[in-house]
Amino acid sequence: MDFSSFVTSLITAFVIFVVLVILFAWLSRRPGNKVIYYPNRLLRGMDPFDGGNHASRNPFAWIREALSSSEQDVITVSGVDAAVYFVFLSTGRASNGTFSHLEKLSMGNVADKSSRLWAFLVTTYWVSIVAYYLLWKAYKHVSELRAAALMSPEVRAEQFAVLVRDIPPVPEDQTRKEQIDSYFKSIYPDTFYRSMVVTNNKEVNKIYEELEGYKKKLVRAETIYAESKKTSKPEGVRPTNKTGFLGLIGEKVDSIEYYSEKISELTPKLEAEQKATLRDKQQAAALVFFTSRVTAASAAQSLHATMLDTWNVMDAPEPRQVIWTNLTIKLFERQTRQYIIYIIVALTIFFYMIPITFVSAFTTLENLKKYLSFLKPVYNIAAIRAVLEAYLPQIAFIVFLDLLPKLLLFLSKLEGIPSQSHIERAASVKFFYFTVVDGFIGVTVGGTFFATFKTIEKDPNSLLTILGATLPGNATFFLTFVALEFFVGYGLELSRIFPLIIFHLKRKYLCKTEAEVKEAWYPGDLGYATRVPEDMLVVTITLCYSVMAPLIIPFGVLYFGLGWLILRNQALKVYVPSYESYGRMWPHMHSRILAALVLYQLTMLAYFGAKKFYYAPFLVPLVISSLIFAYVCNKKFYRFFRCPALEVASHELKETLHMERIFRAYVPPCLCSEKVEDDRFEDALSHVSRAGPFA
Amino acid sequence: MDFSSFVTSLITAFVIFVVLVILFAWLSRRPGNKVIYYPNRLLRGMDPFDGGNHASRNPFAWIREALSSSEQDVITVSGVDAAVYFVFLSTGRASNGTFSHLEKLSMGNVADKSSRLWAFLVTTYWVSIVAYYLLWKAYKHVSELRAAALMSPEVRAEQFAVLVRDIPPVPEDQTRKEQIDSYFKSIYPDTFYRSMVVTNNKEVNKIYEELEGYKKKLVRAETIYAESKKTSKPEGVRPTNKTGFLGLIGEKVDSIEYYSEKISELTPKLEAEQKATLRDKQQAAALVFFTSRVTAASAAQSLHATMLDTWNVMDAPEPRQVIWTNLTIKLFERQTRQYIIYIIVALTIFFYMIPITFVSAFTTLENLKKYLSFLKPVYNIAAIRAVLEAYLPQIAFIVFLDLLPKLLLFLSKLEGIPSQSHIERAASVKFFYFTVVDGFIGVTVGGTFFATFKTIEKDPNSLLTILGATLPGNATFFLTFVALEFFVGYGLELSRIFPLIIFHLKRKYLCKTEAEVKEAWYPGDLGYATRVPEDMLVVTITLCYSVMAPLIIPFGVLYFGLGWLILRNQALKVYVPSYESYGRMWPHMHSRILAALVLYQLTMLAYFGAKKFYYAPFLVPLVISSLIFAYVCNKKFYRFFRCPALEVASHELKETLHMERIFRAYVPPCLCSEKVEDDRFEDALSHVSRAGPFA
Repeated sequence: MDFSSFVTSLITAFVIFVVLVILFAWLSRRPGNKVIYYPNRLLRGMDPFDGGNHASRNPFAWIREALSSSEQDVITVSGVDAAVYFVFLSTGRASNGTFSHLEKLSMGNVADKSSRLWAFLVTTYWVSIVAYYLLWKAYKHVSELRAAALMSPEVRAEQFAVLVRDIPPVPEDQTRKEQIDSYFKSIYPDTFYRSMVVTNNKEVNKIYEELEGYKKKLVRAETIYAESKKTSKPEGVRPTNKTGFLGLIGEKVDSIEYYSEKISELTPKLEAEQKATLRDKQQAAALVFFTSRVTAASAAQSLHATMLDTWNVMDAPEPRQVIWTNLTIKLFERQTRQYIIYIIVALTIFFYMIPITFVSAFTTLENLKKYLSFLKPVYNIAAIRAVLEAYLPQIAFIVFLDLLPKLLLFLSKLEGIPSQSHIERAASVKFFYFTVVDGFIGVTVGGTFFATFKTIEKDPNSLLTILGATLPGNATFFLTFVALEFFVGYGLELSRIFPLIIFHLKRKYLCKTEAEVKEAWYPGDLGYATRVPEDMLVVTITLCYSVMAPLIIPFGVLYFGLGWLILRNQALKVYVPSYESYGRMWPHMHSRILAALVLYQLTMLAYFGAKKFYYAPFLVPLVISSLIFAYVCNKKFYRFFRCPALEVASHELKETLHMERIFRAYVPPCLCSEKVEDDRFEDALSHVSRAGPFA
Repeated sequence: MDFSSFVTSLITAFVIFVVLVILFAWLSRRPGNKVIYYPNRLLRGMDPFDGGNHASRNPFAWIREALSSSEQDVITVSGVDAAVYFVFLSTGRASNGTFSHLEKLSMGNVADKSSRLWAFLVTTYWVSIVAYYLLWKAYKHVSELRAAALMSPEVRAEQFAVLVRDIPPVPEDQTRKEQIDSYFKSIYPDTFYRSMVVTNNKEVNKIYEELEGYKKKLVRAETIYAESKKTSKPEGVRPTNKTGFLGLIGEKVDSIEYYSEKISELTPKLEAEQKATLRDKQQAAALVFFTSRVTAASAAQSLHATMLDTWNVMDAPEPRQVIWTNLTIKLFERQTRQYIIYIIVALTIFFYMIPITFVSAFTTLENLKKYLSFLKPVYNIAAIRAVLEAYLPQIAFIVFLDLLPKLLLFLSKLEGIPSQSHIERAASVKFFYFTVVDGFIGVTVGGTFFATFKTIEKDPNSLLTILGATLPGNATFFLTFVALEFFVGYGLELSRIFPLIIFHLKRKYLCKTEAEVKEAWYPGDLGYATRVPEDMLVVTITLCYSVMAPLIIPFGVLYFGLGWLILRNQALKVYVPSYESYGRMWPHMHSRILAALVLYQLTMLAYFGAKKFYYAPFLVPLVISSLIFAYVCNKKFYRFFRCPALEVASHELKETLHMERIFRAYVPPCLCSEKVEDDRFEDALSHVSRAGPFA
């Protein structure tokens, strides 16, 4: 890629960004769009424009609001996870900022063996030490945020429950429920409240979903009928539908009657199935509730039976995050699944290299000519060539990054992880390896990879030499990539053009009822599973190119600065958190930043080697100190992110404890019914043992 | 080593064994020796000869007694650790036994590429599968033994206490004691009993030891005086001593007067120092006592503060095992010490190779001639040569094995480990690496090691080739070694010749008082730190040589069989356990046996390679399955050996709980005094907070 196409792409991206920001300023003022630009506020029952008149409002007021918002605001609105994400963005920006005095120096301009290389060596130390300091401070801060949230005097159901898996077979003289209750009552005679046996809800869930579907359709049909009354004849047009496949074939029936009939048919069936499920489909897993946070916290960390594969206890996920189907998977099956998934992901990472190699082949003019000579006439048109050269590789790269997440989330779920946030973390780690191995290293080493693969296999040290030799050549590719990411990516993020268009289309042609409209604009969460690894890739890129192509530094600062600003707006006004993991994502972010730092240090070592600088080995202690730093942080901080600290759990509650409400929070919707609480059945929910003082 | 010298050494070893067994039969019947052969029984207040008349007794009755003793007998007399050790010996014997049908086949006699090699491949699978089965059964059994002991209805102090380390600095408005008490009372309001702050006892211990020394000397002087009254004049001879260095120089004084004076001088000094220690020398560590086993067990496993390096809690060691000086070492200092010790041990292992190379050089006649040509005239005398060839290498090897343990125990203690049994386990692991790396691999690869070191470094796979080529040549060396170990080693063990001689000498020339005599015969414990790794070395040797030199199999069976028999006798009648770790040694034994099995499989792979057997890679899945087996066992069983299971701790107690007695058990002897329990002081022991219901 030559310099002119690089500038072209930068300018175009910037223009797109400006257009999108102006669009946002204009669109967000229209009341009809408030559900797209302020859904979070609407859902909390607030005025979207925060008091002021939306029309007369300064179109850039959102910047002031974002800048003046406090961390506590973010926690209140979007939870600890979002606050932790901003800590990460600030750390990213600050660590890029330490390079600022270096902007005008490029190591590429320094002669081989020059003593001026010492300055770069000192800089590498300086950058690393600043990074350690920032990371340490951030870890401590996040730890405090987590502690503050967990010691909150509000009652949170998951702090009173533990998840018990791998329960051994039921003894002959007991029911499953009795088995669990007697086991926990003997260990926790004073604080055990009640247990909830996990049931196989496949059948009941199917009926429930069917019933809910008919209910929705009935509301829709009634709305259509009511509207038709207003618009056409006073008696209205009764909506009809066909009963066959997808409503396309079969008998034509009156919708309202048909759905009502179906509902009254399914309701007793659901109740019967609920009872059958609770009585007969009990599984070897349970949620156990305690009347004390400390007991629940310490039970979640303790070994209960002598074998780890029986009565395996861990902290309960939030009710909304529980992956019910994964709860009944046995310990060694979970382990096996995990390793199989790891192998699959490793293979996928390896074979993704092949398309990536083609992406990389696009990035140089010579390769284009060489491989696609039959297209030569087209490329001779300068304008087309410039556009293609400027965008194609980066767009291909971004498309590649967008294809994976769903696959990775699916694979992570297959591992048997019991909570949604954990699945997203697991997917995010996998995604990071993808981006770094296939994206960063793949693109960098690029076309030469397969040729040099044998060399690397024989002598792993040569990877460093290859990196040192090929990295500088790819600098502009990544500069353009980062610029595209933040200008176009954040422009789209802020303006929400696509959700807006989709919403308006849906509202016009599909949505009839209130519920359907709400579904059409409901914003979802920040989507950490993809957002975090992409940011991590930018951290890796900016760190690794910082010294050899210092132009990337302002791009890095802009990426994290703009990201912070725009996502602050989105977190406060748009997205709605779908779970709260109390900052459990942080240790992953921390490790990945450190991994990027080590990669940076190794790259520098390689690059110093390429410059024939004899004192390059002085960087080796730095790499070792990074590993020690990682070890110390992990040892000191990590355990609190894996399990609750008793000190934190022992803080007093202000609310009165309604154990029944906590228990209810965990009943899956398909089992919720007034008749379920039927004490005549020895079922999975019944209150056989009213042991706790609050029972 | 030629065949005749091999037979010579075998026969001599057997003769020594027979002589020692006869000596034992004769000596153990003499009443004067009962303190050497039955100290365990004497200490338990039992009749050493179990009812029968010692003179008329069958000299081989001990064999019947050992064979008929049950596992429960061993647990009662010698604790769970000893029972676990017998499980290990049985497993060793049984796994050697599986080879028995192979005795007459030696792989050395099978031609290259022969299809008869298939039989050996199948055998390797068979041996491995039997080993898995035996190990699995043994792990399960040991786990049950541990659980049974821990759920015992007897009160055991360590089950009610936890060890708290890394306590943060004292806040200004509190004492250390108040800080600890308020912290734990807020987390465990119902079950917290009391805390004991760890103090720096260096000074007080010095005074205490000095005082105890004088007390002993006073008793000794009084005994001498009383005896002199009987033997010489009726007024007796008052013993005297010199006050200077080692009692050799200085003023001559009357011993009884002098020591009495010293005692009355030191007693108030000790009391003052005790008070000062308890008040002013409190450290950042404590023992915390709970009124419930379950709480103590779950507290030991739970994270208390958000940072792991503050309020670090673990299960308390037995009172008799506590290493007080190690309790106050901070988390990261412990970690650092540990890694430094690991590096030191690794270096020591490497440099021990040098003397071992010489040992190995002795084992072949050619080398002897080559290196020690100046001694040629001596070696030409056939008798001397035969003796030297038969014993020198093995004796040198055994001496080498005996030199290390003290060093390794010392190093392990420096790691900052808080309990004696843990130190012995850590030393035992180190010792195992020594024996396998320096002993087994060192002797095997031997003189060629340094020459081939560069080859191995460049291509680690070549280690296998080298092992395959050199192993068969060393078979007789190890056969002799194993034979020496069990014939001479167990002969000495049973006959206790050395302790007997030392005891009689001491009693005759040194001991005056009853306490001194008891000290002279007090037997000590089984000494797992050295015994286990030596057995492990035999396991490794027999497994690795089983197919290429099947003669080693009966030796292995004999080693473990005889070991079982003789140590059963020793465990029941001689040794006194100095601690009880409830079988915590087992996971180490298990891992090492598995490591030996993997080494065996790799050796077979190498040996098949040397035989140019094309299907040798069929052994690779076996190696992988060993690793999976190790993983599964570790996952399933290990955690219970690291921390108590709540299910076990929740069993009810039969005794009434005397919390004060439990607390007292942990007061170090140098701080024991009637005046210590002085509530006017806010000291490390005082009962500021009588929180527990039993207070």
